[in-house]
Amino acid sequence: MNLLENHPINELVVGQTATYSKTLTERDVILFAACSGDVNPVHLDKEYAATTPFGEPIGHGMWTGALVSAAIATRLPGPGSVYRSQSLSFKHPVKIGDAVTVTLTVSEIRERVKLVTLDCEAHNQDGKLIAKGVAEVIAPAEKQHLAAGVLPSIAIS
Amino acid sequence: MNLLENHPINELVVGQTATYSKTLTERDVILFAACSGDVNPVHLDKEYAATTPFGEPIGHGMWTGALVSAAIATRLPGPGSVYRSQSLSFKHPVKIGDAVTVTLTVSEIRERVKLVTLDCEAHNQDGKLIAKGVAEVIAPAEKQHLAAGVLPSIAIS
Repeated sequence: MNLLENHPINELVVGQTATYSKTLTERDVILFAACSGDVNPVHLDKEYAATTPFGEPIGHGMWTGALVSAAIATRLPGPGSVYRSQSLSFKHPVKIGDAVTVTLTVSEIRERVKLVTLDCEAHNQDGKLIAKGVAEVIAPAEKQHLAAGVLPSIAIS
Repeated sequence: MNLLENHPINELVVGQTATYSKTLTERDVILFAACSGDVNPVHLDKEYAATTPFGEPIGHGMWTGALVSAAIATRLPGPGSVYRSQSLSFKHPVKIGDAVTVTLTVSEIRERVKLVTLDCEAHNQDGKLIAKGVAEVIAPAEKQHLAAGVLPSIAIS
């Protein structure tokens, strides 16, 4: 069983970091398009994408946003966090096969209201900056070790 | 065939709006979790979610972000847009079965660099504000009518 561990407010310090990595697959692009309805062909149609400045299908920009939110929800502060806000600037496209690493760094803690500010950066396997921004979350009050949700199997045909 | 029509820079005016709606299904939650890796059980585990202040599984906050990006990529300005930045404040959770409507409003146009600023709001079926923020996109230079990408069938078991 996959366990998620959170970092409640009393375990957080300014400068603390966490990372989260995922490689973008064609399957991820299809699933993101399906659950959002974003069927822009630059993500889904190789022939069309070849006619764009990207030359090949690219991931949805907000897929990187989804990775940032996954890093917050599963790593830092982790389960029990309440997402208050997120800003993101998109710097570079993500192509299928790119390994994206999100790095979160605690930049401010307002203890009284448990509000934690995180600097968020996403880089690809070449160290190129994909996206950066700032998140605000209400940190959990209590320590938790939690079973991760279990996903059913998903078949694409 | 589903056609996407864009609004190039010369068709955009301040105050112009577009909307995009989607109802959150359990399937969407599973697909978003799968493509992002965000397996926080508050989204996936009914028993665990019942112990949280939400009382039932909620959608990923960034799923609403994905809808905002889908609205931009498919409606306003639509295909050919380049996503530069997005801010979002999360105001209210989305539950399975909630119908979320994103409204985009053009708030600023910098013609020389084709940079368009959009106010973004998402409301649920009761008119409750789910999330709001601001997007910056480079608008397309040319009018396009484009075939939407076609998704393969996805089976969850």
